[in-house]
Amino acid sequence: MNKKNVYMDHGATTPVRQEVLEAMLPFFSELYGNPSSLHAKGRDVRKAFEEARRVTAASLGVEPDEIYFTSGGTESNNIALRGAAKKHGSGHIITSSIEHHAVLDVCKDLEKQGFSVTYLPVDKYGLISMEEFESSIKPETFLVSIMAANNEIGTVQPISEIGAIAEKHKILFHTDAVQVVGQMPLNIKELNLDFLSLSAHKFNGPKGVGALYKRKGVKIDPLYHGGGQERKLRPGTENVPGVIGLSKALELAVGELPQKAEELAKLRNRLIEGLVRIDDVVLNGHPEKRLPGNVNVSFKYIEGESVLLSLDLHGIAASSGSACSSGSLDPSHVLSAIGLDHQTAHGSIRFSLGRGNAEEDIDYVLDIIPSIVDRLRQMSPIRKESC
Amino acid sequence: MNKKNVYMDHGATTPVRQEVLEAMLPFFSELYGNPSSLHAKGRDVRKAFEEARRVTAASLGVEPDEIYFTSGGTESNNIALRGAAKKHGSGHIITSSIEHHAVLDVCKDLEKQGFSVTYLPVDKYGLISMEEFESSIKPETFLVSIMAANNEIGTVQPISEIGAIAEKHKILFHTDAVQVVGQMPLNIKELNLDFLSLSAHKFNGPKGVGALYKRKGVKIDPLYHGGGQERKLRPGTENVPGVIGLSKALELAVGELPQKAEELAKLRNRLIEGLVRIDDVVLNGHPEKRLPGNVNVSFKYIEGESVLLSLDLHGIAASSGSACSSGSLDPSHVLSAIGLDHQTAHGSIRFSLGRGNAEEDIDYVLDIIPSIVDRLRQMSPIRKESC
Repeated sequence: MNKKNVYMDHGATTPVRQEVLEAMLPFFSELYGNPSSLHAKGRDVRKAFEEARRVTAASLGVEPDEIYFTSGGTESNNIALRGAAKKHGSGHIITSSIEHHAVLDVCKDLEKQGFSVTYLPVDKYGLISMEEFESSIKPETFLVSIMAANNEIGTVQPISEIGAIAEKHKILFHTDAVQVVGQMPLNIKELNLDFLSLSAHKFNGPKGVGALYKRKGVKIDPLYHGGGQERKLRPGTENVPGVIGLSKALELAVGELPQKAEELAKLRNRLIEGLVRIDDVVLNGHPEKRLPGNVNVSFKYIEGESVLLSLDLHGIAASSGSACSSGSLDPSHVLSAIGLDHQTAHGSIRFSLGRGNAEEDIDYVLDIIPSIVDRLRQMSPIRKESC
Repeated sequence: MNKKNVYMDHGATTPVRQEVLEAMLPFFSELYGNPSSLHAKGRDVRKAFEEARRVTAASLGVEPDEIYFTSGGTESNNIALRGAAKKHGSGHIITSSIEHHAVLDVCKDLEKQGFSVTYLPVDKYGLISMEEFESSIKPETFLVSIMAANNEIGTVQPISEIGAIAEKHKILFHTDAVQVVGQMPLNIKELNLDFLSLSAHKFNGPKGVGALYKRKGVKIDPLYHGGGQERKLRPGTENVPGVIGLSKALELAVGELPQKAEELAKLRNRLIEGLVRIDDVVLNGHPEKRLPGNVNVSFKYIEGESVLLSLDLHGIAASSGSACSSGSLDPSHVLSAIGLDHQTAHGSIRFSLGRGNAEEDIDYVLDIIPSIVDRLRQMSPIRKESC
C-alpha cells in the first residue's frame, strides 16, 4: 500500500480553509487601519470588524455585545475564571478533574490565592455526576466550570443539566467549548451559560484568535489593562485579520452542521469498530456521548508514543495525550481520572477526525495499524512481564 | 491639487509588508501543525517557529530563550509588570505619568492590590528627570517601567541612564518599546534592561502578535495558565503565522536601520518646519530627542478632531491623541502632563510617518493644511472668545 498523508490530529489544530484565508487576506496590507482610528482607513476596518462580531454572534445564537475577541481558548478561559474570581474576591469554585490545563491549572492558581475549589471526579466514561455536582455546591460557591467535551477522550458532558442546576443555585456557569464549537450543534441560550470559550484554530480558522461569550449583565473584572478595547475586557489593538478569519470559519462550520457532525461520527464509528477488533485494544471515553471526531484507544502492553511514531512513518498524524502536554512523561490526568492504570494510559492514542478526512483514510489507518501493534508487542518488555 | 491617499498614522498601526505576508502564508493551510505535536506536521512547524525565535532574538541582540511571544504590546506589558508584581507580592513601582495605558492603567490596578506606585512627572518636552527618578527609589522598590519613546509626542527617554540607575539600586527595569523597535537602533544588552515589550504591527508586521524580552535569570510569576507554552509564561497554542510574520518584519526593519531612521527623520523635519510656519502652531515633544517618524503639533484655537476629519476628506490619515483613546472627550494625559492647557491639548494632531511615506506626501499635507486651519479658525467660537 502506498504511503498516504492522513491528518487525524484535528483536536490539536486544523488547517485554515481556503475561503477563510481569502477572507483574511485583504486585512493584512490593504485594509490595515487601526479600528480605533477616526480616519477612513480606521473606520472601514472598524465596520468590517464589527460585522465579524455580528456574524460570530449570529453563528452562536447570541448578541454581538456578548462576544469578546481574545487570542485563543486559553486566554478566554483565563479571563472568564480569573475575571469572575477577581470580581468576587473570595469563595468557592467547582470544576472537574478532567478539564484542560487552561481551566485546571487556573483553578490551582486560584487556590493559592485563597479560593477553594472542588474538582469533581468522573466515572469510567469521563462523565461527572449531577448528584455529586449539586451536593458540592456551598453557600459561597460562585462559579462552576465544566468543559462541554473533553479534548482527549471526547466525552460530552450534560451541560444542559449542569446549566439548570447552576441556574437553580444562582452560580455562574462557564464552559470550555474549544472542542465543541464548530463540531457539534450548540444552543448557548438554552444552556443557561454565562461564559463560553472557543478557539478559531480548532474549526479551520487561524491560530492566535479566539472568543469569549459572556452573557449580558454578568460582571467580571478585567485581568489586563490597556487601551480599553473589547469594552475594557481584552485590551490591545484588535487582531483584525484573525477575527475576520474566526468569524468566517465559524459561519462556515456552523452552517455545515448537523450534517457534517453526522458524517464525522460515521467515520469515527468505522475507525472505532476496526480498532477494537484488534486484540487488547480498548476504547476510552463514552461509547455514544462523545465528540463526532474523537477516537481514543489504549493499545495494551505498548507505549502510545511508539505507536505514534510508527504511524508518523506511514504519514499518519495522531496524538498521545493532548498536544499541549506531549513530550511529558506523566500519564494524562484525564486517563488517570477515568481509572486507567499507568501502563494502559501510556498505551493510548487519540485520532481526532475533521474536515478532509474520508473513508479511505480510515481504511488506510486500519490497514497499517495491526502490523505496527504486532511488531511493537513483540519487542515490548511490558508484554513479556505481563504474559 | 488631486486628492492623494497619504497614510501618516504609523504610530497607530502599519500595513503588513509583502515579504512578511509571503513568509506567513504557508503557515495557514500547509504548515498548519501544532508545534507541540510529535508527528512530522508538528515537528516541521516547531522547527520553523524556533527559527523565528532565533531570528527575533538575533535582531534584538539577545538570546532565543529570552524571547517570549505574546499577542501584542499590551499583553507583553501586562505580563512583565503584573508578573513581577505577583512574584514580589508587595512593594513599590516607579513609572512615568506619560506611559501608554497598557502600563499606566496596570500600575493603577496594582495600587488597588496594595502596591505603591510613583508616577514621575515630565518636563515640558516629556522627559523624566534622572534626579527625581533616583530620589524616588525606596528600599521596597522592585521595578521601574519607563517607555523607550512616547507614542503621542515621540519623546525618547534616556533609557541608558535609567538602566544604569536601576542596576545600581538593583531594581528591575522594564521598557515599553512598542514605538521604538524597528524604528530606531536599540541595544538591549547595553541598556541594562530586564524586560522589553514590542508589537509586530508597529513595524509592518501583523496585528495580534508581539513579544516580551525577559533577561535570563529574571524570575516572574505567570498570570495565565494552560498548556505550558512559552516556558509557561504565555500558554496557549502558538500563533505560528503571526510569529513568523513578526520575525520577518523585525529582521527586515532592523536590517534597514539606521539608514531608514535617518530618512524618516528628514521627512519628519520637513513636515515640522512647514507646520510651525503656520500661525499659532506649536510643536509638542522634544525638538531633537524624538522618534524619527513622530510629529505632534497643536493648532491653537481649533479642535484637533476637526482638523483630523478635514484631513481625512483630503485622503490624509493622521490622529488626535492615541488611536486607543480616540473618541474620548478627555484631553490626552500625555499632553496634560507636558503642561498643555485643555484647549491647546484639544487642538493637537499626531502625524506618524513610516515606510512608504515620501517627500511628496509631506508637501501634499503642507499644501492642504493652511486652508483647513484658516477655515476652522474662522468658524471657531474659541477663536472669537480668545481674540
